[in-house]
Formats: sequence, structure tokens, C-alpha cells
Amino acid sequence: MNTALCQKIYLALNPPTEEDSRSAQIRILETLKKTTELVEPVKMTLPVMRRLEQICPLENWNITVTLCWDENRWLITNAEPGNHEQEVYGLAVDLGSTTVVMQLVDCHTGKVLAQTSVRNRQRERGLEILSRIFYAKDQPDHLEELRSLTVDSISEGISLLESQTGIKGKNCSYMVISGNNAMIHFLAGIDPFPVFSSPYAVWADQIGFCSGEELQLPISGMVYCIPARANYLGGDIISGLIDVDIYHQKQIQLFFDVGTNGELVIGNQDFLIAGAGAAGPALEGEAIQTGMRASRGAVSKVHLSDNTFTLSTIDDAPPVGICGSGITDMIAELYLNGWIDTKGRFLPEQSDKIAWQEDRQEYGVCYAQNLWFYESDIAEFLKAKAAACTMIQILLQEIGIEVEDVENLYMAGAFGTHIDKHSAVTIGMYPDIPLEKIHRAGNSSLNGARKLLLDKNKLEEIPKILALMSYLQFGSVDNFLSEMTAAAAIPHTNIEKYPSVEEERRRRSGK
Amino acid sequence: MNTALCQKIYLALNPPTEEDSRSAQIRILETLKKTTELVEPVKMTLPVMRRLEQICPLENWNITVTLCWDENRWLITNAEPGNHEQEVYGLAVDLGSTTVVMQLVDCHTGKVLAQTSVRNRQRERGLEILSRIFYAKDQPDHLEELRSLTVDSISEGISLLESQTGIKGKNCSYMVISGNNAMIHFLAGIDPFPVFSSPYAVWADQIGFCSGEELQLPISGMVYCIPARANYLGGDIISGLIDVDIYHQKQIQLFFDVGTNGELVIGNQDFLIAGAGAAGPALEGEAIQTGMRASRGAVSKVHLSDNTFTLSTIDDAPPVGICGSGITDMIAELYLNGWIDTKGRFLPEQSDKIAWQEDRQEYGVCYAQNLWFYESDIAEFLKAKAAACTMIQILLQEIGIEVEDVENLYMAGAFGTHIDKHSAVTIGMYPDIPLEKIHRAGNSSLNGARKLLLDKNKLEEIPKILALMSYLQFGSVDNFLSEMTAAAAIPHTNIEKYPSVEEERRRRSGK
Repeated sequence: MNTALCQKIYLALNPPTEEDSRSAQIRILETLKKTTELVEPVKMTLPVMRRLEQICPLENWNITVTLCWDENRWLITNAEPGNHEQEVYGLAVDLGSTTVVMQLVDCHTGKVLAQTSVRNRQRERGLEILSRIFYAKDQPDHLEELRSLTVDSISEGISLLESQTGIKGKNCSYMVISGNNAMIHFLAGIDPFPVFSSPYAVWADQIGFCSGEELQLPISGMVYCIPARANYLGGDIISGLIDVDIYHQKQIQLFFDVGTNGELVIGNQDFLIAGAGAAGPALEGEAIQTGMRASRGAVSKVHLSDNTFTLSTIDDAPPVGICGSGITDMIAELYLNGWIDTKGRFLPEQSDKIAWQEDRQEYGVCYAQNLWFYESDIAEFLKAKAAACTMIQILLQEIGIEVEDVENLYMAGAFGTHIDKHSAVTIGMYPDIPLEKIHRAGNSSLNGARKLLLDKNKLEEIPKILALMSYLQFGSVDNFLSEMTAAAAIPHTNIEKYPSVEEERRRRSGK
Repeated sequence: MNTALCQKIYLALNPPTEEDSRSAQIRILETLKKTTELVEPVKMTLPVMRRLEQICPLENWNITVTLCWDENRWLITNAEPGNHEQEVYGLAVDLGSTTVVMQLVDCHTGKVLAQTSVRNRQRERGLEILSRIFYAKDQPDHLEELRSLTVDSISEGISLLESQTGIKGKNCSYMVISGNNAMIHFLAGIDPFPVFSSPYAVWADQIGFCSGEELQLPISGMVYCIPARANYLGGDIISGLIDVDIYHQKQIQLFFDVGTNGELVIGNQDFLIAGAGAAGPALEGEAIQTGMRASRGAVSKVHLSDNTFTLSTIDDAPPVGICGSGITDMIAELYLNGWIDTKGRFLPEQSDKIAWQEDRQEYGVCYAQNLWFYESDIAEFLKAKAAACTMIQILLQEIGIEVEDVENLYMAGAFGTHIDKHSAVTIGMYPDIPLEKIHRAGNSSLNGARKLLLDKNKLEEIPKILALMSYLQFGSVDNFLSEMTAAAAIPHTNIEKYPSVEEERRRRSGK
């Protein structure tokens, strides 16, 4: 028996005789205990009891039961004639406010059979989370609408996974859902207003184990929603910590899930301090004139030498804009080549490509045909990176350690996945630590959900994480704003914090 | 905190502040643990989470939560604003095949607030259990019909209890249901055919804990169906044992629930042996010419002296027939007065009231106007009492003890409740033991259900009872039939088994 949250167990039952006239229910439960050495309580659901008459005799009492973990017991949620032990499937879901990313997982082998992503249909009622929350406030029918759109989004993902694999939702026995507090509240049909409103005490942040039916999700079996720690520290971050496992390490680790909002956790096996704050949409390519999300045709890599831009685009398509990783490269390269100064201002004497734009009343460079990158874009992005790097700074300061004491930095989320680590250090978004200490965690929210799906023992870590974790309100930190101002420079007002960047700049300029 | 399966706990919560921004869910769970010292896991249901927004602020975060025991954890099934700690109600249900008897119980004080009984509407699809079972066999829609009729019967009882007390089903948080295997199968919508068909292995005999919703019962909260031990040893018998508590005693005890069918358990803290068999409808007044159930106008007590019958009737109404207890008295009095012999044959020379009935070709006595009691009635009843007393005899023989070793005999069911103990010994239905050792257990199925409702600790006794209990198939006992023939005499062919009866008979005849 593996450790997944759902299991199929084949039972070769002895058919009843007058000498052994135990009920089918007890026969199954006793045989199961004997076969699997299960120590946890097992309960058969009523729908399964009702179907035993049809199921048991079909293959002469050789049956397969599906077990789903329900917080403190196994539930038998299905019974089938014959041996289907190897056909046990689960779903890991990263319920993002923009995109829902889902994996169909073979819980017998642990393999990911397919992955898909769909737009979160909540967007039909507001592009920003906040507008959806206001839409639902004091309007039970609107809340119900958003709940239903959330379910529809997940259902759409299930259909896509089915078309990839032939495996239906009804044949999936478990779903682990990772999402921020607002997403999980919408899914559960609970008003998320307090997530964004003082005193930030939400209604329910540990939905935990539900039947698929209760949440109206089109799967058989159970659903587990990963609990949250605080209003802005949702199940997605807990899931990320499960993924990167910093709470088992002796040395201090840093986990940063950065996007429009940044959530940050620092700590080790002894403590965890978390904080969350807005970094701004610039990191995801928004609020930048030619910015875009990381989709087809987005410039994702930039190199500048010999007065020439060398670009990579997503899908190698002709460039149509620039995404977060491209912007980071762009600013780093402009700085290392001396085209901009430490405040992000163009130095037009450094290149004939730097041109004054009369209509915008500012300098810019043309990095591809008809695609310009302006000084105001740099300013916008630097604000966002300043917020992100100040969060790290403040947390380090809070526990009284230097960045050198951090053993590993895990960058999660789409931004952290695609960004060039060297560029991120150069612009001063990441601290100046050896690049091998910086890890791309990818979609750690999804990965944590999958790891939980496949390992029941990890569930026990969640209350430990929640207990270990304290939450820092950045808003209540005195020097946050002054720190952020200092961090708006490239790489930082205090250049001593970035010796490697200074060295590289000197090297490139040949000085 | 008392020990009932449902509890209401008043919680004076601190409203959230920025310093204490725990979610309402966690606030409730943590305050609950602190207030009650609960050690078991507690889980809040999703519907309650959804209502916290409405409930919590109404009385400044003073709320009452309802806890319902769910096998290995407490479920929070309701939350109300304000203090309702004392308004916690439950239902105990004896789901009989003829009659459903129900009590509305104040789970705060333990008091029975009202009792009612309704006809089991399953009777619309067959008066006998067996005809209902055949009606449902291989016909899912018929099974569903019987399930629905069962629910309707219980719902009708809830309405009657509401009209007596003003307390609605929706305000009842728990229901404990005791019934035989067929009744519980019908309630759960599971085919009960194997109850009556070899190899007698039913589909599910430990329904256990369900939500009211799952069973479509109109209560909030949970339902517990008392488990069964074997096809003919249903939850009603387990409930009866809980009531009379024989499994905690050092000395050997005997429990007998007798009616058309008899279920019998002998044992003590070390062992329990159970048997079940048909006694015949005569014990309930059926198959007797003027027999009737114990309702208005039924002769329930008979005394005979000086050639005169002295009768009591139910409700003191004019006699219209004779019920089980009356019949027992009648036969005992006829025998003690020497009007019938040990084989139940009239001795016409003993009284001018004994008259030959030309049309029936047998003797009889007129015990009230136009009401006759015939020799064939006696024979019919003696067959039934012989079956009942043989079951006792066989179980005693099985464990190798004499009737004198039995410390207490608990007679359960309607028959055992109304019958005159002395008469029952006289006719040889009960063994000849001192009358103070014979106890009327009444509706022990209902009483056990109520005791479980009021004491969660008793739940732990059920697996012990089931484990302790072995089941004797009377059909497989060699000398059952010969024993039964011997037991058909008054009081018994072996008169030495009944010294007290012989003495009384001698005393009455003045010899």
C-alpha cells in the first residue's frame, strides 16, 4: 500500500456460507484490515453499502474498494467488481485567480498523466480579485454565481484532462486544491470579504476534507482544500512550503512566491516568519507600455552587447511585446552596459539607440520593430522590484540575520520560473547571493498539492507548519517605506549590498 | 458537559481584532476546546462555515454550537446566535415492523419530553415482514418505496411529537434508531432479502452514523443506527442488552424479547450466547378465536375462583376479546383450578361452565358475554409457549447450567411487559424461578436507544457486545423438537422442573 490519499485495494473475499454468514460490509472491512494492515478507522459510505448487492456477486466476490482519506479515517467511497487496483487517479489543482492549473495523477505509480490550465471563469465577474469580492459582498446570489463559476472552471479542466487521457472525473477519487483564501472561500461558497478588510479575520480558513458532492465537483470521492494561515497567506503558500520543504531544514531558507502580490516565508525547522504584500502588476508585464503576459511572441530573454539587442521570444514567434523575465533582462542589460544609471534614468550619450520621444516627453530604446522600452517603464518596474526586495530585507531584519546566512532562496510562481537569476540579482530584485543558492520552484502551489495527494503523511506537517509560522504585517513595520525607497535603485542605494553587480558592471565597461 | 451524543455549547467568543485575526472557524474550534476540555477531534461542517457570517455578529460573537458525535469525532452541525445551551433535543426510535415507537428526549436534562407511536407504513406493502421483503426483491423501485414509507413513518412520529411539545424535528440534533435487520435495511434503502435467505449474510449490518440528510430524515444533525449481530439478531436486541446491561454482570443473566419471534440472550461479562426463533403469533393474541392485541376492551387479566371468572380489561372497557396476558392468566387459572389437565385438555366434570361446542366439536368456557375460550386455543398457545420456553432450555443446556444458576430473567417486549409473571411460570412459559428474579424490561429496544442517545460512552460497549456474543442456530440443535414436545405440557412434562406450580395447584385444590 502506497501513501496516497486515495487507494484502491483488491479484495478476494470468501463468498458467504452458513458457517461464515458475516455481512458483506463486515466481510469487506475485516478482509481489508487483514490484507492491508491498515491501522486507521475505516468507514463504508451509505451509497457503497447500497451497491454491494450489485457489485459483490458479479465476479464471485472479488472486488476492488476505493479508500479516500477523510481527516481521521478512511472512507470506502466506491466498490467495483474485479481487480482495478492499478486504476486509481487523483487531481492536483492550483486554483489561481487568473488561471487554474491542474494535473491528473496516477496515484498508483505517482506519475503525472496530464496537465492542463484553464482561465478562472470568476474573471467574468471581475478581472481583479477585489472587484469579485465586492461583487459578492452582501449578495448571496452573486456569491453563489462566483462559487458556481469556480466549480465550472475546475470542471472544464477535468474535461480537458479527460480528452488528453480518456480518464473521466468520475474515475478520479481525490482532488487536492491549493488556492489563496479568496479562491477557496469562493469555491466553498463563503463570503471572502474579510480577506481584504480589517481586522482581516476570515470566516473559515480550514475547509479541509469534503466530499466531491458537497462542493458539487464532478469527481467521486473526496476533496481536500489546503488550509490557510492568514488572510494573505493562503493554502497556496502552505502548499508551496510543502513543496520546497524549508521547514525540515537546519539552515535558514527563504521562499518567495512573487507576482502581482508577493508572499514570502523565511525560516527553518525551528521557526517560520511569513509576510505578504503587493508588488504591483509590473512584474507580470502589466503597467509596461509593451508589456504582456508570458505567452506566444513575448520577449522573454534580452541580451545587449555591441550596441545590439539579442532577443528570445516565447514559441520563437515574432516579438509582439515583453514579459516579466524579458523586462528584468532588459533593465539588467541596460544597466550593465551603462545605458541607464542606478536610478533607472537613460544616459543618451551611451548609445545612439537611446532616443528622445517627443510625444511621450521621455527617453526610450527600440528593442524590436515598433517595440519601445521607456524610462517610465523602468520606473514602474523598479517600484515593483523594490517592494519585492524590501519584503526580503524586512524579514531578514526582523529575525536579525544577514542575507549571507540564507542557505537557499526558492523563487516560486511564473515570474520566478522564467526570470533569469543573474538579471534578477543585477537589478537588485534578488539579494546578491551565489546563483546556485537561488532555485526556481516553479508552480510550487500545484506541486505541493500533488505531493499531498501522493503522501498522506505530509498532511501531518500542515498543523506543524501553521503552528510554526508567525505572520508579519509589513504595513506595521516602521522603516518599510524608507527601505523601499532605498531599494528602488539599481541594484540598491547601498551598493555594498551588491558586490557582484558592481564587479560585473566594471568588467563589462572594461574599467 | 454531559455525555449525550449531541451537545450544545455556548461560546462567548472574542470578536476579531487586528491583533487576534484568527478566522471565525478557528476562533470557535479553539474556544470550544478551551471551554469544554474536549479531547476528541472536532470538525465543522461546510453548511455551518457558510452560515458563520450571518450568525457570529448577531449577538456580538456570543454563539451556541451544536456538536454531534460521528463515530470518532464531533461534528459541528449548527451554530446559533446567543445562548441556547439548554435547548438540545434528540429522538430515540424503536423501528418495529408493526409499530414505530419514538421518544423526544431533552438531551440537556436527560428527561423524556414526550412519547408517541405510529403504525409502520411499510404495512401498506405487506402485513408480514416477509411479504415486504419479497415485494422489494429485485425491484429497486419497490425497495425505494419501502425506504420512503419507513422515512414517512418516522416523520409522522416526529410531527406527533412536535404537536405534543412544540419542538420541531429541525430542532432535534440527533436520532438513535433501534430496529431489526430488515427494518434498518429498509430505512437505509438496502435489499434485506438475505435476512431470510440462506446463507443469511446480509449486505450491511453496521450502518452506524449517517447525517439526517443522507437518510432523508427531517432532523438536523446526525442519526445512529444500532448495529446488528446476525440476520435475526438485530440492533433492537443489541439495544435491549444495552438497556438491561447483562454484559456487565458476574452472575448469569437471561434476556428474552418475545413476541411472534423470540430473541434470547444468555450470559454475563464473560460470554453471551444468543438465539432467535419463531414462537408463533399466539403469544400476541393471534390464532386464538377471540384473541386480540392488547388494545381497548381486551381482557388482560383473568382470575378464577368459586366457579367465577373475574376479569380486567384494557381501559376498563366492556370485554371484546382476550390478549396475550389474559390468555396466559386464563390457561394458568384453568390449570390451577383443575379445569384442564397438564396437556391442556378440559376436564368437564370440574365445572358446569365447561361446555361441549357441537359446532366446533370441542370443549370451551364462556369467560364473558359471547366470548369463548376453546381447547384448540389452549393448544395453539401451548405450542407457542413451548417454543419460547424451549429456547431458554436449549440455551441453558448449551452452556451446561441449570435454571437456578440464572440470577435475573429480563422479559422484554409488549408480551413480557403485560404478562403476569406468576401465570407465566404456572403455564411453564417462564422457568420456575423466584418471581423477584423475573423482570419486566418493557420496550428495551427503545430504552436502549435512549440510553445510547444520552451516553456516548455506551457506544464503546457495542463492539464489546458484538465480540462477546456467539449465535446459536436453534435449527441446528439436535434435540430442539423433542424438547419442544416435552415443553408443550402445563407446566412441563417433567413436572419436577416446576415445584412451585405443583404446590400451588395442590394448595388451591385443598389437597
